[in-house]
Amino acid sequence: MMAISRAALTGFAADLGGTKTAAARIEGGQVVDRRVVTTDPDADPDAQIAAIADQLTHLGYSNDAPLGVAVAGRVDRAGIWHAVNQGTLTAVQNVPLASMLTARLGSATCLNDAAAAALAEGVFGSGSQSENFAYLTVSTGVGGGLVIANRLLSSSNGLAGHIGFVSSRLARGPCGSGRMATVESIAGGRGIAAAAAASGHKNTDARAVFAAADEGLDWADRIIETSAAAVAALIGDLTAILGLDTVAMGGSIGLAPGYIHRVQSVLREEPILFRPQLVHAELGHDGPLIGALAAHLRKDIP
Amino acid sequence: MMAISRAALTGFAADLGGTKTAAARIEGGQVVDRRVVTTDPDADPDAQIAAIADQLTHLGYSNDAPLGVAVAGRVDRAGIWHAVNQGTLTAVQNVPLASMLTARLGSATCLNDAAAAALAEGVFGSGSQSENFAYLTVSTGVGGGLVIANRLLSSSNGLAGHIGFVSSRLARGPCGSGRMATVESIAGGRGIAAAAAASGHKNTDARAVFAAADEGLDWADRIIETSAAAVAALIGDLTAILGLDTVAMGGSIGLAPGYIHRVQSVLREEPILFRPQLVHAELGHDGPLIGALAAHLRKDIP
Repeated sequence: MMAISRAALTGFAADLGGTKTAAARIEGGQVVDRRVVTTDPDADPDAQIAAIADQLTHLGYSNDAPLGVAVAGRVDRAGIWHAVNQGTLTAVQNVPLASMLTARLGSATCLNDAAAAALAEGVFGSGSQSENFAYLTVSTGVGGGLVIANRLLSSSNGLAGHIGFVSSRLARGPCGSGRMATVESIAGGRGIAAAAAASGHKNTDARAVFAAADEGLDWADRIIETSAAAVAALIGDLTAILGLDTVAMGGSIGLAPGYIHRVQSVLREEPILFRPQLVHAELGHDGPLIGALAAHLRKDIP
Repeated sequence: MMAISRAALTGFAADLGGTKTAAARIEGGQVVDRRVVTTDPDADPDAQIAAIADQLTHLGYSNDAPLGVAVAGRVDRAGIWHAVNQGTLTAVQNVPLASMLTARLGSATCLNDAAAAALAEGVFGSGSQSENFAYLTVSTGVGGGLVIANRLLSSSNGLAGHIGFVSSRLARGPCGSGRMATVESIAGGRGIAAAAAASGHKNTDARAVFAAADEGLDWADRIIETSAAAVAALIGDLTAILGLDTVAMGGSIGLAPGYIHRVQSVLREEPILFRPQLVHAELGHDGPLIGALAAHLRKDIP
C-alpha cells in the first residue's frame, strides 16, 4: 500500500450493484463523468462485464488507464467473484472476475462494493480523521468495511468486512449467508419486510414500513426500532473487537431520516468505551467508485 | 513495525496477571530464566512495579536492556493503565504505567497481556502460518488479540482485541466491562461459576463444574456446553468481521481437556466460510512474555 492523496486519484471506476451498474471517469479525486444503467440480475458474468466495458468506452476509457471495479458479492485475492446472497446476482458463482476484466479491459483491481466504499470513506471521507474506522451500510442487506490505520482490512478469501453476518441477540431467522440470526436478517431491508409480513403486513417493503412508522403506527415503529437496536449492538461489538473511534452509516436505510438517531439513542446505553463517534457517510454513490480506483492506485488489495 | 525473527528476541519481559506476576530473561526467543511470585491484587501500582523491578534485578536486568511488560487490563497508547474488570486489580485506575516503568527501569513497552500473547502466537506460535489470526483466551474472563498480516491490531485507547466483551445470544446478565450479555459473562470462569450458583450449586468454581461434567452430571455438562457454544458463535462472528483463517485457544478453560472439541462441534453447524481452523495456543505461559518483548523490539505499539 502506498499513501495517496485524493487529488492524485485520476482514472476510471465501475460499480456493479444488485440493481444498478455505474461507471465513472474520475479526475483529481472527483467523479467528472458518470453513466448508470439498470443491472440485469440474471445476466451471465460475460454480459455484466460487457455492460461495464460499454459504459467505460463511452466515458473515454482506454486499456492502459487505471481502473477499479467494485461489485456486490465477495471477491477473493485470486480475483474470483462469489455471490454472498444468492438472491442478488443469480449467475455469479466462482467467476474469474479479475482475469475476465484483464482480458477485456486491461489491468484492473476488483473488490467488494462496501469494502470500496469503506476505503473511500475511511481515507477521504467521513473517517479521514479516524484511526480505527468502520463503514456500515444498511440497505437491502447489511454490509461494510474496516479501515485501520488508513488501510483497508482484507482477507485472502475476501470475507473480511462482511459485518452484517455477525450474530444478533435480536434476530432469530436464517440469513442469506447461511448463518442463523444475523444482524442482516433483522436490520436490513429484507429483514424489515420479513418482520412486517410476520406481523400481518404482507407485501410491505422496508420503504412502506418506514412510511408507516412516520405515520405513528406502532407495529412499524417497533420493527424499525429493532433494526436500529441490532445495528447499535453491532457497533458496540465491533468497538470491543477493533477499538473503533468512528463509525459511518450509509445505505438507503442507514441514511433514512431519523434512523441514525435511533441507533445513537440505543448506543447511549452502552458504557462510554464502547460508543464510537457515529456519523453519516459523506460520499454517497461516489464512495464505491472512488474507493475502487483508490484500491487500484494504492494497491490496497494485493 | 519491523519484521523480526524469534531468534532475534533477546532481552527481558514481565507479565503482571491477576494472580501471578512473572519476569523472564529471554535469549534467542527462548525463556532462559524465569521468576514467578503471587500478585497482591490490592497493592498500589508503585508496589506492583517495585515487585517487577525486584524480579528483573534478580534476573540480571540493567536499565539499558530491551524490556516488554504485559499486564492484565487495558493500556492505551499514552501508556496509561486502566482496570477493565474492577474485581481483578483493584488499585488500577488511570495509572501512568509507561512513565512509571521508564522512571524505574528505563525504556519499556507495555501492553495488555492477551494482546502480547496474541502477538507471540500469531507471529511465532500457533498462528505463524496464518494471515488473519485471532488468539482467544478463556479463563476467569475471556480475552484475546488479533494479528492481521503479521501485525497486532491495536487502537489508541487500548481497547482493540477485547473480544470477550462481544455480545452473545446465549448470555443475559451484566459483564464486568459494563456491557450486558457478553461472551465473557457466560463463557468465562466467573460466568460458569455464576451459572452453577443459579442452578443451585453455590460456591462451585469453574474447576468444580468441569469435574462435575466429567462425572456425567447433566447440570454441569449444560453449563460447559453453553460456554463452548458462546465461544463458537464468537468465532463465527469474528470470522465474518475479519476473514479469520486460524483461531488459537488458550487459557485454563480454553485448554481444558475436551473443551476445544465442544467448540469445534458447535462450529461445525456454521457455513464453511465462517469456520476457521481451530487450534490450541502453543506458547503457554511464555506467550505474554515473548509477545511483550516482541512488541518492544518490533515497535508494534507506537
